[in-house]
Amino acid sequence: MNHEEKTMKSEKIYEGKMINLRVDTVELPDKKYSKREIVEHPGSVGIIAITDDGHLVLVKQFRKPVEKTLLEIPAGKIEINEEPKETALRELYEETGYRAEKIEYLFEFYTSPGFSNEKMYLFLATELIEGNAEPEDDEYIEIEKIKLEDLIEMILKGEIVDSKTIIGIYYGERYISQK
Amino acid sequence: MNHEEKTMKSEKIYEGKMINLRVDTVELPDKKYSKREIVEHPGSVGIIAITDDGHLVLVKQFRKPVEKTLLEIPAGKIEINEEPKETALRELYEETGYRAEKIEYLFEFYTSPGFSNEKMYLFLATELIEGNAEPEDDEYIEIEKIKLEDLIEMILKGEIVDSKTIIGIYYGERYISQK
Repeated sequence: MNHEEKTMKSEKIYEGKMINLRVDTVELPDKKYSKREIVEHPGSVGIIAITDDGHLVLVKQFRKPVEKTLLEIPAGKIEINEEPKETALRELYEETGYRAEKIEYLFEFYTSPGFSNEKMYLFLATELIEGNAEPEDDEYIEIEKIKLEDLIEMILKGEIVDSKTIIGIYYGERYISQK
Repeated sequence: MNHEEKTMKSEKIYEGKMINLRVDTVELPDKKYSKREIVEHPGSVGIIAITDDGHLVLVKQFRKPVEKTLLEIPAGKIEINEEPKETALRELYEETGYRAEKIEYLFEFYTSPGFSNEKMYLFLATELIEGNAEPEDDEYIEIEKIKLEDLIEMILKGEIVDSKTIIGIYYGERYISQK
């Protein structure tokens, strides 16, 4: 069955630094019209960085939209003319100081496809070499390394509340236990 | 360390049906100012509905923001004055026709905390009773039931590309294998 929604009108509401907002008027399969509010995002990468002794590298930072400091896997927006793999290596280094000798594309997903086109490319980074982080001007980041086997419990206890990080932990925990 | 960002100004850009957009001017720890683009969302629920024979109940629907038909766990926006558990039971029934004899809150997460406050409450629904779906006027939904052990492979192959669904599959697969 094909239930695509044809765009009848598209209205730009906002063009910003990280996101744009538009409202599309669409034709539904029954020919009725409906509105779709759509947040445009350039896409991002998330990095599952695992140390040789089975720790996951995490970053702690204040997130204004939720007014909380969250523990997350390193991640960042894809810049213009950048390949996702480059973004992954760059963000890992900037946020944590780690360089990865081995970086592997895993899979990709939409963070919230009901209202946004943000796509996240997930990478596995291993054979890590420690260095000094170089965060951007408006980023204040702390680094934590936590054993993968302890992180599943932290999800269930509500101590990890970021979707990409939960995915990264589940993936990493299987990866470690199958090695 | 406390790296909270104080709101110096907050500008409403858009108030819509599902989301609002505002731009906050914040003061960083070094006293410099920066802008934060914030998509406000009322919150949502996702339902990991598992049949007695170990299948996960999924819905297939066209998602305008990504211009694709996606396979997802049942989910939906929390309505005003609704408890997340009520939303979970209502959305499961509306989208799939299933009623759950047992519904359990698992944990919650932010779908994209870099630009949105959308929080998703995840529930486990079991002891399912089949019925007829009652989708909303502008929803066109197909139901699929897939064995949990096959779904991990579908993530790795890029056939499941929705974040809440990937989390639901990893959780469900552990749940089934530990029973």
